[in-house]
Amino acid sequence: MIIVLKPHPTPDVVQHVLERIEALGLTPHLSQGVARTIIGVIGDEEKLQVQPLQAIPGVEQVVPILKPFKLASREFHAEDTVIEVKGVRIGGGHLAMIAGPCAIESEAILMEIAAGVKAAGANILRGGAFKPRTSPYSFQGLGEEGLRILRAAGDTYGMPVITEVMDPRQVDLVERYTDLFQVGARNMQNFDLLKEVGRTRTPVLLKRGMSATVKDLLMSAEYILAEGNREVILCERGIRTFEDSTRNTMDLSAVPVAQGLSHLPIIADPSHATGKPDLIPAMARAAVAAGSDGVHIEVHSCPEKALSDGPQALLPEQYARLMEDLRQLAELMGKSIDVCEGVSV
Amino acid sequence: MIIVLKPHPTPDVVQHVLERIEALGLTPHLSQGVARTIIGVIGDEEKLQVQPLQAIPGVEQVVPILKPFKLASREFHAEDTVIEVKGVRIGGGHLAMIAGPCAIESEAILMEIAAGVKAAGANILRGGAFKPRTSPYSFQGLGEEGLRILRAAGDTYGMPVITEVMDPRQVDLVERYTDLFQVGARNMQNFDLLKEVGRTRTPVLLKRGMSATVKDLLMSAEYILAEGNREVILCERGIRTFEDSTRNTMDLSAVPVAQGLSHLPIIADPSHATGKPDLIPAMARAAVAAGSDGVHIEVHSCPEKALSDGPQALLPEQYARLMEDLRQLAELMGKSIDVCEGVSV
Amino acid sequence: MIIVLKPHPTPDVVQHVLERIEALGLTPHLSQGVARTIIGVIGDEEKLQVQPLQAIPGVEQVVPILKPFKLASREFHAEDTVIEVKGVRIGGGHLAMIAGPCAIESEAILMEIAAGVKAAGANILRGGAFKPRTSPYSFQGLGEEGLRILRAAGDTYGMPVITEVMDPRQVDLVERYTDLFQVGARNMQNFDLLKEVGRTRTPVLLKRGMSATVKDLLMSAEYILAEGNREVILCERGIRTFEDSTRNTMDLSAVPVAQGLSHLPIIADPSHATGKPDLIPAMARAAVAAGSDGVHIEVHSCPEKALSDGPQALLPEQYARLMEDLRQLAELMGKSIDVCEGVSV
Amino acid sequence: MIIVLKPHPTPDVVQHVLERIEALGLTPHLSQGVARTIIGVIGDEEKLQVQPLQAIPGVEQVVPILKPFKLASREFHAEDTVIEVKGVRIGGGHLAMIAGPCAIESEAILMEIAAGVKAAGANILRGGAFKPRTSPYSFQGLGEEGLRILRAAGDTYGMPVITEVMDPRQVDLVERYTDLFQVGARNMQNFDLLKEVGRTRTPVLLKRGMSATVKDLLMSAEYILAEGNREVILCERGIRTFEDSTRNTMDLSAVPVAQGLSHLPIIADPSHATGKPDLIPAMARAAVAAGSDGVHIEVHSCPEKALSDGPQALLPEQYARLMEDLRQLAELMGKSIDVCEGVSV
Repeated sequence: MIIVLKPHPTPDVVQHVLERIEALGLTPHLSQGVARTIIGVIGDEEKLQVQPLQAIPGVEQVVPILKPFKLASREFHAEDTVIEVKGVRIGGGHLAMIAGPCAIESEAILMEIAAGVKAAGANILRGGAFKPRTSPYSFQGLGEEGLRILRAAGDTYGMPVITEVMDPRQVDLVERYTDLFQVGARNMQNFDLLKEVGRTRTPVLLKRGMSATVKDLLMSAEYILAEGNREVILCERGIRTFEDSTRNTMDLSAVPVAQGLSHLPIIADPSHATGKPDLIPAMARAAVAAGSDGVHIEVHSCPEKALSDGPQALLPEQYARLMEDLRQLAELMGKSIDVCEGVSV
Repeated sequence: MIIVLKPHPTPDVVQHVLERIEALGLTPHLSQGVARTIIGVIGDEEKLQVQPLQAIPGVEQVVPILKPFKLASREFHAEDTVIEVKGVRIGGGHLAMIAGPCAIESEAILMEIAAGVKAAGANILRGGAFKPRTSPYSFQGLGEEGLRILRAAGDTYGMPVITEVMDPRQVDLVERYTDLFQVGARNMQNFDLLKEVGRTRTPVLLKRGMSATVKDLLMSAEYILAEGNREVILCERGIRTFEDSTRNTMDLSAVPVAQGLSHLPIIADPSHATGKPDLIPAMARAAVAAGSDGVHIEVHSCPEKALSDGPQALLPEQYARLMEDLRQLAELMGKSIDVCEGVSV
Repeated sequence: MIIVLKPHPTPDVVQHVLERIEALGLTPHLSQGVARTIIGVIGDEEKLQVQPLQAIPGVEQVVPILKPFKLASREFHAEDTVIEVKGVRIGGGHLAMIAGPCAIESEAILMEIAAGVKAAGANILRGGAFKPRTSPYSFQGLGEEGLRILRAAGDTYGMPVITEVMDPRQVDLVERYTDLFQVGARNMQNFDLLKEVGRTRTPVLLKRGMSATVKDLLMSAEYILAEGNREVILCERGIRTFEDSTRNTMDLSAVPVAQGLSHLPIIADPSHATGKPDLIPAMARAAVAAGSDGVHIEVHSCPEKALSDGPQALLPEQYARLMEDLRQLAELMGKSIDVCEGVSV
Repeated sequence: MIIVLKPHPTPDVVQHVLERIEALGLTPHLSQGVARTIIGVIGDEEKLQVQPLQAIPGVEQVVPILKPFKLASREFHAEDTVIEVKGVRIGGGHLAMIAGPCAIESEAILMEIAAGVKAAGANILRGGAFKPRTSPYSFQGLGEEGLRILRAAGDTYGMPVITEVMDPRQVDLVERYTDLFQVGARNMQNFDLLKEVGRTRTPVLLKRGMSATVKDLLMSAEYILAEGNREVILCERGIRTFEDSTRNTMDLSAVPVAQGLSHLPIIADPSHATGKPDLIPAMARAAVAAGSDGVHIEVHSCPEKALSDGPQALLPEQYARLMEDLRQLAELMGKSIDVCEGVSV
């Protein structure tokens, strides 16, 4: 950590800062330049709280040198983490192809969609039973009945399933039905929820918040890791910007940035990022070419009747064509896509 | 609602859209122009889900005309809502002056701060017992012990108290100690938490999320109102932008925008918005001049030792000077600041 | 255009709006619903200025239906525009591979870099002679001497060249030396410059401004097209957001969005978008996979001694490896990369 | 300047960085900690170019300590700069009240508006003769005829006048008619234009770009100052964010931030920031309360017929009411508003 003092500090100010650093059990190194005095701090930076030092009178700027996350960092764990769910590997060269409807609406519809995406090569089935909707008057999901349907569809088609958990009180319930938890963008900093899923041993797909930096996303992953659950998959799904031709702005740079900082797999979700089916194939290809460890795509057999996010869903046949492209791209990138075991269709 | 079709629609496409609208029990009005065909939809727009119509092939754009919130809207409730907490009124010309430390650290420190802010004219005491911290390794708050201390300080100084609730499981516990709930920016779209506080009859201060528009904020207020709790106070606390000289960008326009759209009171929080004590007085004055229904300011007797957000706290004497300015401004604006009843200091 | 009136308009207000529309030579269509009155406007929307209607008392919202650009739109010109510069085609399945240093520093260095990028497969050579630098104290470019060097390098290696023009007074001078103009992000709305390059017949690479939407970019292209120069190439180079791990946020969705709205080619610039050489290969691959019509990459033989933007430049050998990947990707996408004619190296 | 090396640097890497720093005539100070090696650099930091050091292999981060602007900084010039134009002072406790139409449309209309704003207490008259319009098909201004009308109105009402200059070729022409130049948001980084107005001795109102930080704004001011023109007035006019209920997001924190970093006056423009007349009075009051050195407001006698930006203009009578409020606020803040000399109305 480096502390920059305001111009022309009095000896008292310098002395006070040095004493405060020593009181924290750290060693200060003073350098007095012509224009500025700076103090390097050596020791266990993790113990240190950046902000209190900034509150000391005479301090202009505190520059942290170490990253604020540890378990999520590549410095802590050099190799790519590979997560395996019912034979489907994610990370380290293996792509997760997650597909399914936004919300689970009925057993018949989900079975139809599951059949379609399985045949196209998806290896994880998604579907929402608890839906975070901007409006209290929108469809909020089928709840436990939805979970039951999702499990049944996963079992029928031999696919691991993933579904969103929004409330710490639902973690136990959802865990009984699902193979992976999804924590949505709006809950990326719902720290109680992060701790709760961190206490389970079920892998967690953690979506980036709309105003979260990649570092913020890794700090939220750290909450889960710190509770003992080491199976976290990151997900880029678009950030909020001024551009209004897409629902959000897909920040694909987040993929190589996260892979440089962290060993955790990171996938991309062009459905939520763009909100427009016309753009999804281009952005899904781009995600794989950028090195992402998988793609999350919403598929619905009748988007115009979907109860949630219909307009951003691909039809099963559009998804099948896209999967053709993605398979070729994955091969070119030297990546593999595990086929999920179980009943073949 | 207005539906704009893509250029040169076939009669089949037009027919299909008309049928879908009628199937929803609504009445379509077709206008065929030279360059575009548009369909106006009349009926109970609330029942309608915007998005499915957008998913119909041939539809270019769906333009909603009515606002998606109802109970929060000024059209539904023309007069300003005035919320009263232990004799302190908020809204309708009455300003909430909320002050206190970011986190409750000990009874001695909180009592000292409470004495200071009460003397300066604050009429609500704040303090966090459960803290949403970006890092799992930062101080997370004293929990119930913090709530007990807060209640004691409020009772000692005759001030209503406010504290943050982060987890739906804590709502009952927190309600036993507090006069107002605070729902923080990171939880603005934690819909289960919103529903839970909506089921109580304790007023809720709802902070705007860092990537939420004013309309999103009102939609989240609608969640609370729809559960039956009509006492919601909005709070502008800065949005996330590219500007890095402040912690967030304080969007003071949100104050008159929200007051135009809604009857709910809206206050401003220059502490979190700027993150810098040097900027707080200017922005607190600006907030009152913009018409906000109160100001939320963090005050600490020793910012450099604070366990959370010390660098953005004012000293009690700085707060007292600022309150002088704010009182004069309030008077100029024709607003009043209720003095909280109880033990005077 | 659709005009939405405020709730409960008086007959006078409705009448006044109808008269104003008719005074503009347009035909209004009135629909009075339960909650809102809307007026559809049919006629030559281009003549209409959106904003004055919004200023009429009683008008809540004016919703334009037609796009504000015409010559740039795909509705006006359905086929992809293909631009050819000295045998190198850009657009319509042909990729521009633009490479070279940020600034031209000396003939020796530029020749060395040109040799490297030509050998790697670049088909257009870039280099800046007039540099837009944030600081007046930074290197501002070699001016005309730089242009001369660039021309010499292009001629030596048989490559068309591109360089930035910043000042309308320099357009004639720059045109004498270059094959394509570049208009930089900071000048995307320098309308006098746009008009000036629009009066030439030299193709223009128009970079997206840091706070410009795709539609704004197309409006700026319209300025050039409206002056008679139909050879405009768009360029996505990152927008400004809160994310600080990259210099800007590369918005690759802009590629399919622009291709849907416009017939003009669009390329991507991962060097300026990311500002970090580690991220450039991933984002260049992503750009090609997203369908972009080319990639613009800064290459320098000694980045640590570059006078401008050194840290974001690839070494020639890194660029050569990347071009291998891009060639394979282009082939997979069914695209071709023209080899520039002239002296082979 | 502080250079942070990547973890575990080899001695060769460290040696290479030290040599590069010494080659620049600067003195490195090496500190090797457990987790990171850092190198402090002392000497004339201004000579140093941050970026090349970042390009050296093994360097993780370069942290500049000094601000990149000098002439604009308060460290260089401690007292507030006060600019005086025909008896009207701006800065140092004196407020500029700039008002007038967006575009000059005719002599009759401008005279009518000038009479209104003069009577209300405005002390500088604005009007655009060259208009930067997003669309090439919108009204582009009356050009020199507009300048002549503006001068005539200023002379008639004894008010100094301000108008926008967009093209370096127009600087001489515009200077013949105006008392202050305005450089608009879109041209904040049009460096050739900044240099050209920097060579005159006419004061310049420099508006913040939509994606510019306060530091970027000060760097652009530095361009003007470095050419010898010391009379620069900054202007906050809103930045581009995701919030869509206002045209831009007014960042009033920029006022105290700029006043802390710089001695230059800074005013605020709620007309362009909000784009909505309903919001202008609240935001103008907030600007004065935040300490801004003036307010720039668009006023039109018939907004619904204005050829440019009509919907954001106040009527003269609305402006007069607002000026009443602003005068009282200014008095409360201990500020004065000079009355412009000349013919009284």
